[in-house]
Amino acid sequence: MKKNGGREIERKFLVRKMPDGLTSYASSKISQGYLVSLEDGTQVRLRKSGETYLLTFKRGAGNVREEREVELSVEKFDALWPATEGKRLVKTRYKIPLGERAVEIDVYHDRHEGLVVAEVEFDDEKAASDFQPPDWLGDDVTGDPRYSNQLLAS
Amino acid sequence: MKKNGGREIERKFLVRKMPDGLTSYASSKISQGYLVSLEDGTQVRLRKSGETYLLTFKRGAGNVREEREVELSVEKFDALWPATEGKRLVKTRYKIPLGERAVEIDVYHDRHEGLVVAEVEFDDEKAASDFQPPDWLGDDVTGDPRYSNQLLAS
Repeated sequence: MKKNGGREIERKFLVRKMPDGLTSYASSKISQGYLVSLEDGTQVRLRKSGETYLLTFKRGAGNVREEREVELSVEKFDALWPATEGKRLVKTRYKIPLGERAVEIDVYHDRHEGLVVAEVEFDDEKAASDFQPPDWLGDDVTGDPRYSNQLLAS
Repeated sequence: MKKNGGREIERKFLVRKMPDGLTSYASSKISQGYLVSLEDGTQVRLRKSGETYLLTFKRGAGNVREEREVELSVEKFDALWPATEGKRLVKTRYKIPLGERAVEIDVYHDRHEGLVVAEVEFDDEKAASDFQPPDWLGDDVTGDPRYSNQLLAS
């Protein structure tokens, strides 16, 4: 995730049809769990992505959110991880190019098998609102709580 | 803080009279702020104590709480600290011996100048309930939200 002064500007879409050759792109298995996850969008998240361990604080809702992230050692991650029990999810994330941007496609596993969601990140709000999604993307579900990882993890 | 399988067992008291020679004991200036601080006792706290930087997750209320803590580098601490704005406090902590135990005496600063609170940590709940406070300790305020750091920081 790129940072814009601690802000995150992105849009989220359902995926109507999987893009061709999806599995030929780079992917990583992501396990994440929440220390805190509130309805107003505040969250403290632990994420293991490949061999990278992250702690992320997010606040706010919609397509602009405050986001602060630090990397943890595996030992520190393991010390905090037990507190996320019951608030976890697993997904495979594919990163595919779309013109000058990248789209992240999240394929969920376990009890959310079958759910696929795409995220596109932007440098500013104008770029976000001007974005014309390709036809393989479906409904814009930015800010829709049904597709928030927070809710999917609970 | 000692750990008991991720649990913290402690009692908190007001200080009726400062113990003799307080300033001759080891002390540290503590600055702390909260990423998250909920009424049910859930919190994610950042603390700078001397040159030690900590991130602590706590959950639960009363004299037994889940607590998980990791040390952060100053860079990682600084990356998260801005998100605690408006939820911070500063205190000086003295650690003084009391028989075989240690008592932590917190002297608050800034808008809480004049407030002094003592905490005693125990190995198990029986030791906590058997504890007879010396006469320089005042009311037992364990679990009293008025003296929670969480509330004092808001």
